[in-house]
Amino acid sequence: MSDESRTKEDAYARAGVDIAAGNEAVARYKQVLGAWRHPDQLDAIGGFGGIFRLPGSDDRALVASTDGVGTKILIAAELQRYGGVGRDLVNHCVNDIVVVNATPLFFLDYFATGKLDPAIAAVVVEGCAQACRAHNCALLGGETAEMPGLYAPGHFDLAGTIVGVVDVGEIPNPQSVEPGDAIIGLPSVGLHTNGFSLARALIAHHEWSAPFDGTTYADALLAPHPSYYDAVRAIEKVARVKAMAHITGGGLLENVPRTLPPGVKAVFEASRWNVPPIMAELVRRGNLTPEEKYRTLNMGIGYTAIVPFVEAPKAAAAARDAKVVGWIERREANEPQVVIHEARS
Amino acid sequence: MSDESRTKEDAYARAGVDIAAGNEAVARYKQVLGAWRHPDQLDAIGGFGGIFRLPGSDDRALVASTDGVGTKILIAAELQRYGGVGRDLVNHCVNDIVVVNATPLFFLDYFATGKLDPAIAAVVVEGCAQACRAHNCALLGGETAEMPGLYAPGHFDLAGTIVGVVDVGEIPNPQSVEPGDAIIGLPSVGLHTNGFSLARALIAHHEWSAPFDGTTYADALLAPHPSYYDAVRAIEKVARVKAMAHITGGGLLENVPRTLPPGVKAVFEASRWNVPPIMAELVRRGNLTPEEKYRTLNMGIGYTAIVPFVEAPKAAAAARDAKVVGWIERREANEPQVVIHEARS
Repeated sequence: MSDESRTKEDAYARAGVDIAAGNEAVARYKQVLGAWRHPDQLDAIGGFGGIFRLPGSDDRALVASTDGVGTKILIAAELQRYGGVGRDLVNHCVNDIVVVNATPLFFLDYFATGKLDPAIAAVVVEGCAQACRAHNCALLGGETAEMPGLYAPGHFDLAGTIVGVVDVGEIPNPQSVEPGDAIIGLPSVGLHTNGFSLARALIAHHEWSAPFDGTTYADALLAPHPSYYDAVRAIEKVARVKAMAHITGGGLLENVPRTLPPGVKAVFEASRWNVPPIMAELVRRGNLTPEEKYRTLNMGIGYTAIVPFVEAPKAAAAARDAKVVGWIERREANEPQVVIHEARS
Repeated sequence: MSDESRTKEDAYARAGVDIAAGNEAVARYKQVLGAWRHPDQLDAIGGFGGIFRLPGSDDRALVASTDGVGTKILIAAELQRYGGVGRDLVNHCVNDIVVVNATPLFFLDYFATGKLDPAIAAVVVEGCAQACRAHNCALLGGETAEMPGLYAPGHFDLAGTIVGVVDVGEIPNPQSVEPGDAIIGLPSVGLHTNGFSLARALIAHHEWSAPFDGTTYADALLAPHPSYYDAVRAIEKVARVKAMAHITGGGLLENVPRTLPPGVKAVFEASRWNVPPIMAELVRRGNLTPEEKYRTLNMGIGYTAIVPFVEAPKAAAAARDAKVVGWIERREANEPQVVIHEARS
């Protein structure tokens, strides 16, 4: 291993999250799952949600996704601010399935803790319920697990599963993405539910209540993960959306390629959008390289939609704060799938 | 609080699981969820799984359930035996939805750990995949979360969500349960996925590899949670099943009443089935009262099905080791919903 790659690995490791291990796990899962496939399972597009033929229907499908809130949960738990994590989780899950145009049907939560405090559990579940209702999505069930010895006092984990439905003909077709298409970006409001292990390493617990950018570090870190459902629907009314990506763990660099066909690359012009101050602060404190920041953080873009060039102005005007943030170009075999141009300072 | 009830509470607390807190959480959830209900959400029967009208259909429904493996996971992790927990989880979920006669469609897992070891993650997911395949159920997706600071080194949590489908007309109707009906019991092979916090308190880590009942404590504790899917289907071929219960946390005392109409009680004759030796050992070590053992452990019955009296012999003969373990009687308002007769020693 060269010194250069070792430095890079060390920088990732500061986040306490081993990206190489994550990728290896995914590769192993593919091997495991390759052994057998249910005939009603449709090809997942980008892997944001799994797709399964709706029983009794030839032209509709169920879309399902499971996710968690990551170590944002540790900040919420230590600050005893339990109201937001349920909404964060539901919105995260909604965004994961709207990528294939699904309409949410129902959601189930998994809340696990070392010592069950019913009042805290109820606040967490109420957050889920409110975000579900905002999407006309049933909170159909869930599991509350009390597991002494697994979770430290005051700690808990929260995960959830969403199921939606889609007309198969309305699933965006990434194969139609072509050079010249525009990338519409929807703004993030902060870390959402990713990058918190890095944030916790760079912003110490004792700083959380300190003022930051007109608020506090805690408020900036816990800013709610928004739902992009309404914005996506508004864009779809005026433009043909060819592919979408929810920018979660892995950032623009790993999420956008999930829905790109071979032969093209996504080129972003970073000057076209704003970086939330909390992310600029993390980049400064961690002295993050471009590669690191765009792989660990969303850096201001929470969701992307690729539309034909001529429809880009209408699409950008359809949703608040939506912007054209890049475009699609032809890609040579040795080029990366995502290129981000930054203005030189 | 009387001395007697205090003793009782102390005994529960030995399990490290606060049953009162669990019940209070459920009551609070009901309040939260009562605020709004999706029109396509059907009344859950017994609450083992949530029921939602199948899009585009008037006579079919989706059934979904989320569950975890409980602190069985801690024994598996400490013994580094990762192969069984995925199967335990899937089988648990399958049993939860077969209670309303659903056929599994797909499953998603949530695997969370402090430091991701791809090889361990793959073994866990492979266990899920094999159990899914055994039920012709797609492993449609999942989430692998690396959360340093939440999980201790070597620890992990595992939860999952299953979605199945059922003809609404084939959902058992507990209102049809009447005095004289027989209860068919399917045998458990051990703790399945409940009672492990109590087991860990009563059987110390250093004993796990010691011989017990022709095997070891570890093997007895980690005995796989079986799927009752095939047994249930076999019984349904020969008998009209009026109500079913998966005997999980809460034991016979809390799970059987979930599908009983008012005005009846379930009367069990404990001499009719065998108690797995590991449970007899826990009862002995913990000096558990009948109330405690039947509420914390399955005590040998993993699943119950209520059938008309005249069909009981056929039903019991249809599945291996199925037995008539009790019957339904009229219940006065002040009587418990479950009575278990034990032979006096």
